[in-house]
Amino acid sequence: MKTIGRHVISELWGCDLTKLNDMNKIERIFVDAALRSGAEVREVAFHKFAPQGVSGVVIISESHLTIHSFPEHGYASIDVYTCGNLDPNVAANYIADALNAQTKETFEIPRGMGPVAVRRIQAM
Amino acid sequence: MKTIGRHVISELWGCDLTKLNDMNKIERIFVDAALRSGAEVREVAFHKFAPQGVSGVVIISESHLTIHSFPEHGYASIDVYTCGNLDPNVAANYIADALNAQTKETFEIPRGMGPVAVRRIQAM
Repeated sequence: MKTIGRHVISELWGCDLTKLNDMNKIERIFVDAALRSGAEVREVAFHKFAPQGVSGVVIISESHLTIHSFPEHGYASIDVYTCGNLDPNVAANYIADALNAQTKETFEIPRGMGPVAVRRIQAM
Repeated sequence: MKTIGRHVISELWGCDLTKLNDMNKIERIFVDAALRSGAEVREVAFHKFAPQGVSGVVIISESHLTIHSFPEHGYASIDVYTCGNLDPNVAANYIADALNAQTKETFEIPRGMGPVAVRRIQAM
């Protein structure tokens, strides 16, 4: 299996406060996001905090999706990491829409590209 | 709860091949890494792939730790994301040592800093 992956980090602000505190809804959104992107779901683990906030992960054959929600700030911290031919933006965009994010900052990090090669420079 | 977090991405190469394929060992290493960094463990979910490889997550009160291992390449893809006063490097360094990584590339991403403010520039 190839090590190369695409890791999208998505910072969502101005989300629907009620959704951000609804663990069951977030879990459904995340499983749906994984499936829509063509991923195979392997493990699902979510946790509801008191007094508010949800953390969770969907482990897929192609890596993972995670969330940490802060309903009191309308903020959701999202990671979508995929290997293979999947596009992590499919799931990240679906999640942003489903949480009604008003502001979305997204960037992508390449993963598993191989160790940095330090070439020996021959003395002149 | 404050939204600010520190997310360390750690690309480990030249790891111990046997450890990378041992789900129970990896799970212990990750729970130990979380506890050593002062985190509170909330959920633990790991998955063993056929013919090889392990994916998993430890959800902590302060965010999460994840791994995807590729034993055939000696590669482990690590994320340690912490909120509060925890230093994610404590767990990331412990994991790298425990997996006998020969090469470690690490970088840190600030999370939850707030939406980018676009200030209106007054016309002259």
